Parts: sequence; C-alpha cells; structure tokens
Amino acid sequence: MKNENSTLEIKQMILNSNTVVVSSLDKNGYPTSRAMLMLNEKTSLSEMYFSTNTFSYKVIQFHENSKASLYFHTTNPFRGLYLKGEINIIFDQKIKDFFWHEGDEKYYRFGKTDPNYCILKFTPVEGNYYCGLRIDRFVIFDGEIQLVKPDLNTEVPDFLKQLYKEYINKMKTQSNEK
Amino acid sequence: MKNENSTLEIKQMILNSNTVVVSSLDKNGYPTSRAMLMLNEKTSLSEMYFSTNTFSYKVIQFHENSKASLYFHTTNPFRGLYLKGEINIIFDQKIKDFFWHEGDEKYYRFGKTDPNYCILKFTPVEGNYYCGLRIDRFVIFDGEIQLVKPDLNTEVPDFLKQLYKEYINKMKTQSNEK
Repeated sequence: MKNENSTLEIKQMILNSNTVVVSSLDKNGYPTSRAMLMLNEKTSLSEMYFSTNTFSYKVIQFHENSKASLYFHTTNPFRGLYLKGEINIIFDQKIKDFFWHEGDEKYYRFGKTDPNYCILKFTPVEGNYYCGLRIDRFVIFDGEIQLVKPDLNTEVPDFLKQLYKEYINKMKTQSNEK
Repeated sequence: MKNENSTLEIKQMILNSNTVVVSSLDKNGYPTSRAMLMLNEKTSLSEMYFSTNTFSYKVIQFHENSKASLYFHTTNPFRGLYLKGEINIIFDQKIKDFFWHEGDEKYYRFGKTDPNYCILKFTPVEGNYYCGLRIDRFVIFDGEIQLVKPDLNTEVPDFLKQLYKEYINKMKTQSNEK
C-alpha cells in the first residue's frame, strides 16, 4: 500500500510540476544548477523536455557530459524528488516546431528556426523520493517506477564505520538502561 | 548602479533563504540534489551551514569529493542564485553544540553528541545570479561579491561555432532588409 502511494505521488509530482532544478557538470567537474520551465507536451516517466538557448553554458556542458539530474520540490507539505539520468541536445526541426509556443520569440528572435533555439531531452534512470523523514529509492524501467532497496554496494569510509559503532553502542546502552 | 543592485540582491537572497537545493556528486559522477534547511546562525557570503545525518549518502559523497553547489530561487518574480564551492563535514563538538536547536532530537535521537549528527560547511567561490533574462556572473573573495565577465576561456565545440555563424548571418540578413 505504502509502495503504491509513493509511486502515485512520484508520478503526480513529475506530471504536475512546471519549475524544475536542472543540474549538469561544469568543465571542472562541479555540479551546476539552474531552475528551468519544463515543457509539458510530452512529459512522461521516461522523458522530460526543456527549451533553451543554444549559446548557453549548459549546452556546452551537456555536449561534453550528458550526466544530469532533475530536482522537484514542494513546501507545505515538504516533498522532494530527485531524478538521475542523461540529457541530450536536440536540433531536429520537427521537434523544435512541436515544442514552439506563441511568444517564444521573446527568447528566440528568429522564431522556430532560430539557431539559438534548441530542445533538451532528459531521460531518467533512477531517483529518490523525499517525503518527511522517509526516503524511497526507485528505478524507472520501461516507463514504470519500481521501488528498490538502498544501494548496499556503496563503500563506507572507515571514519563512518567507527561512528556507526559508537552509534550502535549508544543504542545498546540505552536499551540496557530501560 | 546595476552592479550595486545585483550585489545587494545576491546578499539578500543568501541571508533571507531557508530552503536551499544542495548538490553533490554521486559515486558515478552524476550531479545529485536535495533540498536542505540552511542554519542561519552564522550565514555570511563566505560560509553557509547545514546539519545532517552522518549516516547518509551525501556525507559519503562529500567525503569522497567536496565539490558542491547551492541553488536558491524564488518565483514571482523569478530570481535564481547558483553558488559553486566546497562542502566540508564537521564533527567538532563545539560547532555541533553551537548549531543545536531544541527539538532536533526528532532527527538525532542521542542529542548534541549523537554520532549520527554532523554539520556541513559550504564555502562558495563563485556563482551566477539569474534575474529575468539577465545573468550576472560573480566571484566571492574575502566575503565580498565581485561581478565578473563571462568566462571566455571555455572551449566551444565545432557544431556550436557553426550554429553561431548561421545566427550571425541571420542577423546580417535582417539588418540588410531594414
């Protein structure tokens, strides 16, 4: 039941959001973020689209490295959704036509065929859903969300192992005192 | 005058924000984001603090790679602020005491000395301020904001150079038609 709720909430968050924080990597390997408006014509769990200026740093960044993430969030109640995936840059005129909106000349002065107008396509593979203190981890496969267990293959540094021992000891002491 | 306004707005945005999107790099080099509450006791242009669970993926990530970014934004009017820098993990008990709030036991059951409670310190070096269609680029040096010109050392891929030529030609054609 809990699983079904999370899956539904994740879907709703993706389908109902406009502003999304899109992250890329800069030339020095730092994460870089900016808010972008999601184009909602073809949004699904498998693909999300954005229009942008061709002559912008993020296009150079995604051309160099397609690794990307999206972050959606709401306050009251707090919900956060992180999606990890790849971003591809699209110049195909049919796709540019499809996503064109009246008034976009404000950003792209030469209209639909403006070389400075292009489309970014994000394809997610996995993500985290933050709901209160709970974190649900999931993969997206064939357009469907599958909740998964935390990744236990992560290498834990020694200082964290030591702190975790201290933590477990505190728990033991507490339960002995009861 | 424009410069002074931007500098003031950037300062205000940092000092008045609570929720910030914090980005790190995961073990596969993908940007990863989550919203966090900024601790406002010692916030300045040179340092920003967050408390977090020691036993969380982000602590492992920042231990492996301190490269980080913060992203602040508001809607109506839209303003976005990206800060690039480093995050260090702090276990110093005095600093943990300093940032402790009544009620934090909800997140850290053993209180101020909980091994699962630690502080993240973000130190920014540069950033972008997005205000409407304008982007101001700046560096932070000695706790002060200095606006800078776009980085012209960026290597531009050939396909973008070609598209830029097309763009310039369109501009020439347009101005000849007038």
